[in-house]
Amino acid sequence: MNELAMQHIPESKYCFAINSNTMAIRLRVSKEDFPDKIEVVYGGKYEYAKTQYSVTMERSYEDRLFAWYTAYITLDDVRFVYIFKITEEGKVSYFSEDGLTDKFDFVLSFYNCFQLAYINEADVMEPVEWMKTAVFYQIFVERFFMGDEGKSKTYINMKWGELPTPKSFAGGDLEGIIQKLDYLKELGVNALYLTPIFQSVSNHKYDISDYYKIDEHFGDKETFRRLVEGAHSRGIKVVLDAVFNHCSKEIAQFQDVIKNGKNSQYFDWFVVHGDKVDCENVNYECFASCAYMPKWNTSNKAVQDYLIGIATYWIKEYNIDGWRLDVSDEISHEFWRDFRRAVKAVKSDCVLIGENWHDANAYLHGDQYDSIMNYAFTKACLDFYCFGNFNTKQFADKLNEILMRNTDAVNIMMLNLLDSHDTYRFVTEAKNRDKLKSALALLFMFVGVPCIYYGTEIALEGNFDPDSRRCMEWDRVGKERDVSTLVNGLAKIKTGGGFSDANIKITESDGLITVERNNYKLSFNGKMPVEYKSKNVILSNNYSGGELKENAFVLEKLN
Amino acid sequence: MNELAMQHIPESKYCFAINSNTMAIRLRVSKEDFPDKIEVVYGGKYEYAKTQYSVTMERSYEDRLFAWYTAYITLDDVRFVYIFKITEEGKVSYFSEDGLTDKFDFVLSFYNCFQLAYINEADVMEPVEWMKTAVFYQIFVERFFMGDEGKSKTYINMKWGELPTPKSFAGGDLEGIIQKLDYLKELGVNALYLTPIFQSVSNHKYDISDYYKIDEHFGDKETFRRLVEGAHSRGIKVVLDAVFNHCSKEIAQFQDVIKNGKNSQYFDWFVVHGDKVDCENVNYECFASCAYMPKWNTSNKAVQDYLIGIATYWIKEYNIDGWRLDVSDEISHEFWRDFRRAVKAVKSDCVLIGENWHDANAYLHGDQYDSIMNYAFTKACLDFYCFGNFNTKQFADKLNEILMRNTDAVNIMMLNLLDSHDTYRFVTEAKNRDKLKSALALLFMFVGVPCIYYGTEIALEGNFDPDSRRCMEWDRVGKERDVSTLVNGLAKIKTGGGFSDANIKITESDGLITVERNNYKLSFNGKMPVEYKSKNVILSNNYSGGELKENAFVLEKLN
Repeated sequence: MNELAMQHIPESKYCFAINSNTMAIRLRVSKEDFPDKIEVVYGGKYEYAKTQYSVTMERSYEDRLFAWYTAYITLDDVRFVYIFKITEEGKVSYFSEDGLTDKFDFVLSFYNCFQLAYINEADVMEPVEWMKTAVFYQIFVERFFMGDEGKSKTYINMKWGELPTPKSFAGGDLEGIIQKLDYLKELGVNALYLTPIFQSVSNHKYDISDYYKIDEHFGDKETFRRLVEGAHSRGIKVVLDAVFNHCSKEIAQFQDVIKNGKNSQYFDWFVVHGDKVDCENVNYECFASCAYMPKWNTSNKAVQDYLIGIATYWIKEYNIDGWRLDVSDEISHEFWRDFRRAVKAVKSDCVLIGENWHDANAYLHGDQYDSIMNYAFTKACLDFYCFGNFNTKQFADKLNEILMRNTDAVNIMMLNLLDSHDTYRFVTEAKNRDKLKSALALLFMFVGVPCIYYGTEIALEGNFDPDSRRCMEWDRVGKERDVSTLVNGLAKIKTGGGFSDANIKITESDGLITVERNNYKLSFNGKMPVEYKSKNVILSNNYSGGELKENAFVLEKLN
Repeated sequence: MNELAMQHIPESKYCFAINSNTMAIRLRVSKEDFPDKIEVVYGGKYEYAKTQYSVTMERSYEDRLFAWYTAYITLDDVRFVYIFKITEEGKVSYFSEDGLTDKFDFVLSFYNCFQLAYINEADVMEPVEWMKTAVFYQIFVERFFMGDEGKSKTYINMKWGELPTPKSFAGGDLEGIIQKLDYLKELGVNALYLTPIFQSVSNHKYDISDYYKIDEHFGDKETFRRLVEGAHSRGIKVVLDAVFNHCSKEIAQFQDVIKNGKNSQYFDWFVVHGDKVDCENVNYECFASCAYMPKWNTSNKAVQDYLIGIATYWIKEYNIDGWRLDVSDEISHEFWRDFRRAVKAVKSDCVLIGENWHDANAYLHGDQYDSIMNYAFTKACLDFYCFGNFNTKQFADKLNEILMRNTDAVNIMMLNLLDSHDTYRFVTEAKNRDKLKSALALLFMFVGVPCIYYGTEIALEGNFDPDSRRCMEWDRVGKERDVSTLVNGLAKIKTGGGFSDANIKITESDGLITVERNNYKLSFNGKMPVEYKSKNVILSNNYSGGELKENAFVLEKLN
């Protein structure tokens, strides 16, 4: 065994309780090592010197460098201590806090075994149940559909369907979404993620001036209530965008600070360098370099309470089902801990999805959010399908690596996406509809929750913002049915519970990637055609019996 | 570079803020790799594509397998993103979330750089100031000194100085500690850790039946108030033992559950398997297999509030300076998070020291305790001085490995110890007074806070419990001054601020271990004499100019 590659960290993604008496254990080893057997040798903390049990681990995942062995162990005594026993060419070695050793002294193991000393219920993270079968559809509200024909349209400055600029208003609103709920249900989605809907002067509404008011262009609270009720009556969840890193310069609290400087009761709600706000030289922290979006000081208890109050208000009053957390990585961990406690106390199955573009493990221990927008998955798909950075082998490796970043519960709730309002549209990067379809099949099969950006079902094009925020082209819906039919087929399996757990096996061989999950098997290739015969084809693209053509896929039911 | 050995994890011990604008960065590489240069290439999150800065890392620690490079970076823009740039034989490579690569695309770095996206004040863990210069003395109260001659002594069942049994009572009490405060101050200690002092029928008092009452054998609240005030007036802190994993079967709440079963309002305060307590078959969770110590259900909010109320009471009413947290590893993380918030709100420099015998990183992110009893350090000393498991090289490696388990702030507050009421006494394991002295010199030099178990200053002997809890032999104090003189000398440097930060350099060469810290240098050997010349000797043992004899040490001032 290459000891340098071996890794295990107790009470982490390597060792976590999945319920009150079941432990999941992972051990990372070099991919080059193929020991005959790796066992978890475990026991009760106070009996371990005398009594040990063992379970054999499985080689479950392989990434570019490492192989990951896993085991699930059901316990009687939840005071769980353990080490690893490795058998290789007849020789036995042990892996403990002391590393790889030839011998292990169980009598002194209280010094150097691994442990998760007690499974406390309060620390067990279980997935939000409905997320197991969720299919998300992200709506950039201003561009989806205008339903309220009676509203004042003086603010609208572009014709529906024109290419948007950063300052364009096309007229999309909540009434528009309500009118399209049947369309969405038919498409197969069962959860909506709406970009911000609160009072704001911009079209994206990430600069909020009143968190308790629905933006007047979008509707009012009554409209929103009908939207949530209409969605719920169709089995569709509603997740809103929590913009808690920053607000609009126009918000009352910041205006008070501008007016009263240090004497404002809100002075410490922001981070101002100096005694008063200097609007010209921007002496306050803000989002990126956007002076119109001052940053909240989320280390301040009063701000924490204020923002948490907003989060719980929309759950209590309008029964929303979750929050997507904007720029969540720049907000304090302490805030997210309190936020989670407060939100889950009001609605335990309210889902919390961070916007962290990087490995966010530090936020995903179960005390902060449930999951993140999985941009690492996005990037892997771009590297494979669009940028030419990955061959099939490298892509399979990366997918496994991403899975091993977090615990099972987090993986099950991960919001997987190909694109969003903050990226190019995937089909535009791919310049190829077959690639989009193959990527969609993978998106639905991968552990986690697929999230379709509005318009994907018609392969809507779009470069970077503002182009990725084009108006939905409703006249294409009836005409271009290939992608929407695929989405619908995949959504049926997902919402039917076909891919609801953390089990997956992703392997590669001779240019073919195989994804096995429960009774389903997805096979796809890259640029090169691959010979392939399948039996029970459920969905496919570019596949004719015997061959996966370029950028094809085939989804089979195994039995 | 051996990529398999390379490791960096953002927002962990590898990357943490040490104040509002300074980052500490660590990178782990194979010990066999000696690149020409490793740099942190960093920048502001929103400017990184265009503007990068770099700082060269130092090779600061080496353990058995790995070398650890470190850097401290002061930031203007605290939205910190970074990668590593490695120069080796003229060739440049990069280490990012994507691993080791020949190229790195800064334009797309928002996908794969490392980050700590914003230093939020609420998340910065700074050491409790007084811990930087603390020297602890642990007192097993029942065996230290009997000061209250007027109390009822009917419970005392052994003569002071006899060997104790598990059921022995010798008469030690709080008045005894008060009377010895001048002795302790003279010895040089400035912090006391007392084993439990609340109402309990045992001699160790880890089975508490009333957390709001001082045990009647030990004194009363008035005695305790005088103890704290007497200690404080001498510059000595007082840390108590928080036994929050379990209590005594005799406590009112458990008695109520015994009486009323499921109908008791306290039923969910414990973990009872069934509808009522079965005392004979012990159908409830308890500490170890001790039926007389039922386990609290620390996932229960009411229990959390009750225990936190106890912790804050003794701070508010008696001004104690910290809690040592008994069996803290079996208590829920959620509890410790709330506990920390509540305790620090009452007294921000109240220290929280867990009893975790293992790598407790999951508890030491800054949201739970400050540090732990460093039994890994204990074990390393045992392996080197007592068990013959480590040569000097292996010992130096292990010491560095232990340092790299946690952040600087945690290391500075780590309670380092050679022994306690839960181990053999160190001198008994070592069977050698020179070894004890060498280990004491290291104990004081190592990063963290030295903790002397009562009697160590006279090299008091003791096998495992109950023998390690012998009565203090006061008649030896005047006669055996060698160890106490050494402790005093070391304590003067520590309490004077000589070893207050996280800087240390531990290396080994030819059987000699060298520990450099600020302007001090400790050199010590093992069984083999080592030639050595030193200049400004402050303290030494078994050293005569030119040679460190067996188990010697010499402490020098460098300038």
